[in-house]
Amino acid sequence: MRLRRKPWAVAWLADHADLVITQDKAVSLKGQWQSIFAKEQPIHVEIGTGKGQFIIGMAKQYPETNFIGMEIQEGAVAVAARKADEDEDALPNLKFIYGDGAGVDTYFAAEEISKVFLNFSDPWPKTGHEKRRLTYASFLKSYQAVLPEAGELEFKTDNRGLFEYSLGSFANYGEAGARLKTDKLWLDMHNEDPANLETNVETEYEQKFKVKGPIYKFLGHFENK
Amino acid sequence: MRLRRKPWAVAWLADHADLVITQDKAVSLKGQWQSIFAKEQPIHVEIGTGKGQFIIGMAKQYPETNFIGMEIQEGAVAVAARKADEDEDALPNLKFIYGDGAGVDTYFAAEEISKVFLNFSDPWPKTGHEKRRLTYASFLKSYQAVLPEAGELEFKTDNRGLFEYSLGSFANYGEAGARLKTDKLWLDMHNEDPANLETNVETEYEQKFKVKGPIYKFLGHFENK
Ligand SMILES: C[S@@+](CC[C@H](N)C(=O)[O-])C[C@H]1O[C@@H](n2cnc3c(N)ncnc32)[C@H](O)[C@@H]1O
Ligand SMILES: C[S@@+](CC[C@H](N)C(=O)[O-])C[C@H]1O[C@@H](n2cnc3c(N)ncnc32)[C@H](O)[C@@H]1O
Repeated sequence: MRLRRKPWAVAWLADHADLVITQDKAVSLKGQWQSIFAKEQPIHVEIGTGKGQFIIGMAKQYPETNFIGMEIQEGAVAVAARKADEDEDALPNLKFIYGDGAGVDTYFAAEEISKVFLNFSDPWPKTGHEKRRLTYASFLKSYQAVLPEAGELEFKTDNRGLFEYSLGSFANYGEAGARLKTDKLWLDMHNEDPANLETNVETEYEQKFKVKGPIYKFLGHFENK
Repeated sequence: MRLRRKPWAVAWLADHADLVITQDKAVSLKGQWQSIFAKEQPIHVEIGTGKGQFIIGMAKQYPETNFIGMEIQEGAVAVAARKADEDEDALPNLKFIYGDGAGVDTYFAAEEISKVFLNFSDPWPKTGHEKRRLTYASFLKSYQAVLPEAGELEFKTDNRGLFEYSLGSFANYGEAGARLKTDKLWLDMHNEDPANLETNVETEYEQKFKVKGPIYKFLGHFENK
């Protein structure tokens, strides 16, 4: 998703530096993220949050969790944060990072976050671009570095190739004897398992692509031996 | 798949005891399976071979491999073996076992076979029947017991629930630190990856169900640490 330039974004982000954390500030907050939230409670992070529909929906649905939407595109993170800011509900449990998911272990300390969400991540279909996929082994390693034992990873996508690749990457993950165990898989989540759909918060991409073919979902957790 | 009784099957199987091995004889052949084939070459085993279309097609396509189709239903194994027997090609590289896949490690010695195929295995959808699924951990353990290091497992199915379950079972497999690594996944194999389709041998179920929805396929190998 490439957004058109948003001329208002730079000034808006500067004005809302408490809501949208820059990369530099994120690094300085390492180990102290609870201090910027109203309540001390588990932190869940979405990497590649786009225009924020999912993370805002989650923040509303689960007030007892702190959420962070991380996004590398200035225009997207500005749209997402402004939407949150203008929402009828105050959302003291939601922040954004304008930054690169590759830096997740430079922003967070070990066990500082308890769940990572990836939604409709860019597929990078060329074999040569494998290392850019957010489900590539080096990314998994950085997620595990900031999650506790049994910390969760949740991943939704409509992209068959990316999901095929990612399931292999998850199953084969073995950093220092660690595992990424599979808790549940959905190969067509909008046409099965109504109980799961009841609590599902849709992303922008999900809303658009759920009518065109299956949406795939993975839920798993890391284990250290 | 429940077949109608085949009144001719008992006598036919007794007459073709060299082609269709009984469970008792299979146990006594443990470690000596090469002796019943024309040529000493790798042995691939399909568990739940049904009416035999796949294993017969494989035996034709790969004369440099020995194949064994294992089937628990008398009527089915008789139909499969008769089809092989009446084929225009002599198939010296094909045998059947009339027996239960649960016994695979009582029929074969360690490293005696080099690949296991599961095709459209009975889904046993009830949670209480999980242990009967041919992709349940105890079955994976028995496959690994008869495969060499890096021995392969290949699995095709149209059954979404069984495939979801099986991918989890494969990914989580960890008998004594062993792994079942994912080599490749197909989430709609008849509408992707034409190169794979070129060498694909269809099963009866595959032929019937490929027009109704996606056929899923898993290819992986066992690893011992
Ligand atoms: C295809 S969009 C999906 C957006 C949203 N999650 C959804 O499901 O509608 C992927 C988003 O991930 C962002 N992104 C890609 N790589 C990223 C990275 N390394 N770190 C942070 N965001 C990333 C992109 O800028 C884009 O906004
Ligand atoms: C749904 S049919 C599929 C047949 C064939 N593989 C195909 O793809 O057309 C499953 C077959 O597996 C056989 N089967 C089920 N459990 C088995 C077991 N434990 N050992 C051997 N065969 C088994 C059944 O009798 C049946 O013939």
